[in-house]
Amino acid sequence: MDVKQYMQQLGQQARKAGREISKADSGRKNLALLKIAAAISADSAELSLQNRKDLQAGKENGLDAASLDRLELTPARIEAMVEGLKQVAALADPVGEITNLCYRPSGIQVGQMRVPLGVIGIIYESRPNVTIDAAALCLKAGNACILRGGSESIHSNQAIAACISKGLAEAGLPQTAVQVVETTDRAAVGELITLKEYVDVIVPRGGKGLIERISAEATIPVIKHLDGICHVYIDGKADIDKAVAIALNAKTHRYGVCNAMETLLIAEHIAGKVLPILAEKYAEKGVELRGCLKTCSLVKNAVRATEADWHTEYLAPILSIKIVADIDEAIAHINQYSSAHTEAIVTEDYTLARRFLREVDSSSVMVNASTRFADGFEYGLGAEIGISTDKLHARGPVGLQGLTSLKYIVLGDGHIRQ
Amino acid sequence: MDVKQYMQQLGQQARKAGREISKADSGRKNLALLKIAAAISADSAELSLQNRKDLQAGKENGLDAASLDRLELTPARIEAMVEGLKQVAALADPVGEITNLCYRPSGIQVGQMRVPLGVIGIIYESRPNVTIDAAALCLKAGNACILRGGSESIHSNQAIAACISKGLAEAGLPQTAVQVVETTDRAAVGELITLKEYVDVIVPRGGKGLIERISAEATIPVIKHLDGICHVYIDGKADIDKAVAIALNAKTHRYGVCNAMETLLIAEHIAGKVLPILAEKYAEKGVELRGCLKTCSLVKNAVRATEADWHTEYLAPILSIKIVADIDEAIAHINQYSSAHTEAIVTEDYTLARRFLREVDSSSVMVNASTRFADGFEYGLGAEIGISTDKLHARGPVGLQGLTSLKYIVLGDGHIRQ
Repeated sequence: MDVKQYMQQLGQQARKAGREISKADSGRKNLALLKIAAAISADSAELSLQNRKDLQAGKENGLDAASLDRLELTPARIEAMVEGLKQVAALADPVGEITNLCYRPSGIQVGQMRVPLGVIGIIYESRPNVTIDAAALCLKAGNACILRGGSESIHSNQAIAACISKGLAEAGLPQTAVQVVETTDRAAVGELITLKEYVDVIVPRGGKGLIERISAEATIPVIKHLDGICHVYIDGKADIDKAVAIALNAKTHRYGVCNAMETLLIAEHIAGKVLPILAEKYAEKGVELRGCLKTCSLVKNAVRATEADWHTEYLAPILSIKIVADIDEAIAHINQYSSAHTEAIVTEDYTLARRFLREVDSSSVMVNASTRFADGFEYGLGAEIGISTDKLHARGPVGLQGLTSLKYIVLGDGHIRQ
Repeated sequence: MDVKQYMQQLGQQARKAGREISKADSGRKNLALLKIAAAISADSAELSLQNRKDLQAGKENGLDAASLDRLELTPARIEAMVEGLKQVAALADPVGEITNLCYRPSGIQVGQMRVPLGVIGIIYESRPNVTIDAAALCLKAGNACILRGGSESIHSNQAIAACISKGLAEAGLPQTAVQVVETTDRAAVGELITLKEYVDVIVPRGGKGLIERISAEATIPVIKHLDGICHVYIDGKADIDKAVAIALNAKTHRYGVCNAMETLLIAEHIAGKVLPILAEKYAEKGVELRGCLKTCSLVKNAVRATEADWHTEYLAPILSIKIVADIDEAIAHINQYSSAHTEAIVTEDYTLARRFLREVDSSSVMVNASTRFADGFEYGLGAEIGISTDKLHARGPVGLQGLTSLKYIVLGDGHIRQ
C-alpha cells in the first residue's frame, strides 16, 4: 500500500472512531486511560527494550546528546507517563458540559454544549512520551487522533501504541481511536496535513522549522506556536528581591524551553540597583549578556545588543537586556518584538500591574511570577498538547478545552419563529 | 494612490486604532455607539438620498428585485440600525472579563481574561445595514475593523461611514477604528484578505461564491459558513401539532435564509400521520416537494428526489423529504449530508432528545424548535456578525464572544518555578 492510500485509510478509520469516542461516556474513557496506564506499567521492560533500539540507531546516526536525552525512556519517564494518564483520568470530562442555558423572550432556552472537535492530527519530534500525553488528552476530550512521531523514536512509539491499543480494547473502545503512524516515510506528514475530509485540526510540536513548514502546507487549521520570545519587565516600583528571583528563574531554570525569558526590560529608575546584582548572578550561571547602551554602561561584562537580538529566541544561556524609561516604552517594545507567548511584569504598583495585564497582548501575561509557569501542568490543565500563540480558538497552553468546541443547543416546546 | 497602497494604509491605521480601542473603557465605547445612533437619526434624510443613488444605479445595472430590496434603506431599516446600536451599547462589555481565577498548588493564581482579537476585516454584499451591525459589534468587543461592502451600495455605505466617524470623534475615539473601504475596485478585497500584518480575522458575508473565493485566497483566518443545509427530524414520538408547526415554520417562514430547513426527515412510524397534513400545507404555500420512494407513495404531489437533492441548499420554496427507520438513520443522514449549520428533532421522547443533542455535530442543535431560531438576535447576542459552521474558535451565530479571545493571566507574589 502506498503512503497516500495508507494515510487515507487511517483518516477514514479515525473519522469513524471519532464518532464512537465522541459518544463514549466519561467512565469508559477513564477506564481506557487507566487500562493504558496498566499496560504501560506491565510492559515497561518491552518499552525499554524498544527504546534501546531507537537509542542505538540514534547514536549510529549521530544524534546529538540533547536529542538522545529527549529520546530516552528512563524508568522515571515511564512512570511519569503512567502518572500522566492517571491525572488525565482524574480530570472532569469536558464533553457535554452545558453552559449559559437561559430562557429567551421567545420562550426557547439557548445554551452552549462543549463537544469534541473530531479528529486531531499531531506531529511531533523525538520525545516518545508525547505519544501518551497527546493520546490521553484527545481521548478524554472525545476526539480520535492520528499521531506522527519522529522517525528516530519509531520503535518506542510503536511499543507505546501497542499499550494504547490494548487499553482501548480492554475498555471496549475502538482501537482506531488512537492511531500511531507506522511508516517513517516523510510523505506521511504531507498527507496528514491535507486530509481535510478526515482531520479537523493539526497540532505540530517541535522545532520552528517543522512548525513553519506544516503551517505553510497544511490545508487544515493548525494550533501552534512558532517562537517563545518572552519578556520580563522590571518596573521602577519592583521589589528588588522578587525581581532578581524572577529574572533569574525565567532565564536560567531551563534554557531550551519556549517559556524561558529571552529579553529583560528594566525601568531606568531601578536599573542601577537591580542590574549589577543580576549581572553577577547571571555571570555565575555563565549567561552571556547583550545589552543596550545604557545596560553596557552599568554592566562591564555585557556586549552591545544588535537589532537582531530583540528578535531572537536564543534557547540558550544568552540574554538581551534593554533599559526603558517606563511601562509605556516596555509595552511598546513588547508589542514590537514579542512572539506573543508569555510576558511578565515585576512591580508592587497596583495601577501598573492592572495596565500590564490588560494591555499586553500575549497568550500569557503575568504579574510577579516567572514566565516558566506558562505550562499546562502549572495552569491545572492536567497536561498540554501544545501552546498556541494564535489568537483564534485556543491561546496559551492547550489542554482539554482547546480540543473541544462549543455548539449552541436550543430547547423548545414546539416553538416557531414569529 | 494605488489599491495595494491604499489598503496597506487602512491596515496600518486599523492596527494603531485597534491598540487604542482595546484599551477604551466600556463607557466610552457605549458613548460612541450612542453618538453614532444619534448621527444616523439626525442624518436620515442624507442616508435616504445617498441610498436612492444606489437604488437608481442598481436599477440601471439590472439588479434583480430581491437585490434591490436588500439594498433599500427604508425609514424602518434606518430606525432598526439606530435600535441595533442602542442594543449593542446595552450589552455587557466582554473585554477584560476574568474567569476561572484560581490558586494553583504552586501558589500562583491562574485565570483567563477575555480580550479583543485586534483588527477584523468584513466583506459583505448588498445590505448596507451590515455596515452598522458589524461596526457596532467590533467596536464593543474592542476591535478595529475594515469594512468592505458591495459596490452597489457604495453611496449608502459612505453615508453611514460618515455617521460612524462623527460618533467616534464625538466620543473621543480614533475615527480609524472603523474604516469603510472607499474604492469599489475588486482588487481591494484581494488585498484585504492577505493583509496578514494588520488584520487578524476575516468575516465574509454573502453568497456561497463570494465566501468560497475568500476562503480559498485568504492568508488570514476566516470565520464563515458556506451552506445552510438544515434538517428537521420528526421522530416517531413527535407531537403531531408541534411537528407540523415546526416543519412548516422552518421551511416557509423565509425561503432565502441560511437557517431555513432544506430536508425533512420523518420516522417511518409516524410518516403516514404527519406527512399528508404537511403536504397539504406545503401545497397551499406553493412548496415543491421532492421525496424518497416512500414519501412519493404517501404524497401524490411529490416528485422523486435525486442524490443531488440531499446535498442542495435550495434557498427557495423546494423541500426534500426522506422517510427513515429511526433516529439512527436520521443522524446518519445528517452526518452525511448536513452542512453542520442547524438541525432540529421533534420528539416527546426524553432519551432520544438527549441523544440528538449530544450526537448531532452541528453549530446549532435543537429540540422542538424551528431551525429559524438559529440567529444572533434570537440567541441574545444582541446582533451577529455572521454564522460559523467551522469547529474552531466560534460556532453558530458569532457575536461579541466570537470577536474576542481568552488569554491566560497569572498573578504571583514573586513566585518562581521549582
